[in-house]
Amino acid sequence: MHVLITGAAGMLGRKLAAQLVRDGCIGRREIGTLTLVDVDHSTVPADLPGDSVRKTADLSVPGTASDLVAAAPEVIFHLAAVVSGEAETDFGKGYRVNLDGTRLLLDAIRARGIGERYRPRVVFASSVAVFGAPLPEVIGDDFFTTPLTSYGTQKAICELLLADYSRRGILDGIALRLPTICVRPGAPNRAASGFFSSIVREPLAGHEAVLPVGDDVRHWFASPRAAVGFLTHAAAIDLAPLGGRRSLSLPGLCASVGDELAALRRIGGEGALRRIRREPDAAIARIVEAWPRAFDPQRALALGFHAERSFDEIIAVHVEDELGGVVAAG
Amino acid sequence: MHVLITGAAGMLGRKLAAQLVRDGCIGRREIGTLTLVDVDHSTVPADLPGDSVRKTADLSVPGTASDLVAAAPEVIFHLAAVVSGEAETDFGKGYRVNLDGTRLLLDAIRARGIGERYRPRVVFASSVAVFGAPLPEVIGDDFFTTPLTSYGTQKAICELLLADYSRRGILDGIALRLPTICVRPGAPNRAASGFFSSIVREPLAGHEAVLPVGDDVRHWFASPRAAVGFLTHAAAIDLAPLGGRRSLSLPGLCASVGDELAALRRIGGEGALRRIRREPDAAIARIVEAWPRAFDPQRALALGFHAERSFDEIIAVHVEDELGGVVAAG
Repeated sequence: MHVLITGAAGMLGRKLAAQLVRDGCIGRREIGTLTLVDVDHSTVPADLPGDSVRKTADLSVPGTASDLVAAAPEVIFHLAAVVSGEAETDFGKGYRVNLDGTRLLLDAIRARGIGERYRPRVVFASSVAVFGAPLPEVIGDDFFTTPLTSYGTQKAICELLLADYSRRGILDGIALRLPTICVRPGAPNRAASGFFSSIVREPLAGHEAVLPVGDDVRHWFASPRAAVGFLTHAAAIDLAPLGGRRSLSLPGLCASVGDELAALRRIGGEGALRRIRREPDAAIARIVEAWPRAFDPQRALALGFHAERSFDEIIAVHVEDELGGVVAAG
Repeated sequence: MHVLITGAAGMLGRKLAAQLVRDGCIGRREIGTLTLVDVDHSTVPADLPGDSVRKTADLSVPGTASDLVAAAPEVIFHLAAVVSGEAETDFGKGYRVNLDGTRLLLDAIRARGIGERYRPRVVFASSVAVFGAPLPEVIGDDFFTTPLTSYGTQKAICELLLADYSRRGILDGIALRLPTICVRPGAPNRAASGFFSSIVREPLAGHEAVLPVGDDVRHWFASPRAAVGFLTHAAAIDLAPLGGRRSLSLPGLCASVGDELAALRRIGGEGALRRIRREPDAAIARIVEAWPRAFDPQRALALGFHAERSFDEIIAVHVEDELGGVVAAG
């Protein structure tokens, strides 16, 4: 089987590629070829299958998508996107990459399938940003999408396209509204959600971190490992039970900053807690206030998707996957 | 004030133009210029304001939209669309006209406004086709949009674009999910919903009509006059109460075919009823089964939108507006 990953150089793309190489298969189907594409140079996992390729290409440039689907990949993980902040500051780039890029990919699949039996599984990384305040405390599976960012708008539009192209039999698509990924590895970034990860990651590495909101702030989390699990599970399962409704809110952990700090104390000790500096930031508090806090993802649970159930688990995954199982002495 | 209507040659566009000419204003603002554009030749109402123009142009052709907004119309009614059936049979045309055409219009407004204070009111004709089965008996204002046609998908996408462009201050938009318009004037068409109109229109004109479904089939209706009222009201009111949620389900009448026939009997007599031939059609019954039956349009009601409350009223509007107040003897 041939598997294509767009956005393969991103945090999730790299972890997904590494997992696929470890698994060697999706469901019962062996992976013969892995094509990794990104606008940046991708980090290639060791032990790639024989005729795998890495491409540096921009999906939003006409022709790129046709080139990528020419070899008829059976599974396409579409992760490529401009992130939330950039889509907000650069209107044109956000729509070009996140909307036009996706549409070019879907239309290339359509063109590739004319006169042939080509109907790939397309797993699309959507986001809880398709929802916008005011929100209920718990968001049900039939709640409407009223995004408050251009990024969320572009994701919601791509969900609609994916559903229509699936309904027409052009592809077999599923959109996954990923929870906030925590603990994100790597350097702190300027995303408003960054502190949720940095207040665990930095103290455990012996560094200081800033906490801009109060302990009672709640949010919806899953680990990078759980996110990779969502993607591979979505590629393997029968999607017929979804009917025409191809977008899924996913399981996650509804936790407060207080829950997060308590788990950090249990795993990293008082020393880790002392490395957190409280610097209340009203602007960040307002942004976070507008985000979803919890979901009731009945459909995804019924399809076998699962995530962590405590912040201890989320931190344990970080320690295992990023720190070689070792926590610095508190 | 300069008012632009796209899709001005359609049933609703013609009625809207005629109403605007009669009113001479929108809210308290006098209409100085009316620009009517359509791919077909528009019927021009008598007594058009002085420098009004009629244009035959295709919005989905790049350049057309820039040309139309060059004169900075303050109110834009965007009605132009390929209808449901055609968007389903002609995939490319549906996306080109209904999605790309709308995006070209919104982007032309954006370009027109750069460096200037241009932020027009945009009233977009959306549809209850943004909803898809399975549906609750009554659809609330926060129910999700899962269209089951490409037409409904395109309308739902345009709703998202309109909301994002409004949030960014590029325009001041509102999307109206029009109920099924009944009684549609003119010749019977092949739309699956056509019978709802023809079983009133044809008997009242002394002709036979076919009824393909049972008396218990329920649907959501408003008259053409109510639809024009939705559009002009949406152009006049303050939209600040909508916040970021720019799409509205509208008031309408939830009525069964039985209700419709009873009203027809009261207005047209037994003779009118006898002109209806029952020809059950399982295919049409299945299509109609998947459509919304009723809404609880709290937000639209709070904003002052209103429609008919009985089928007698809907038929009375048809008799007044299309038949000169005269019903043929039963």
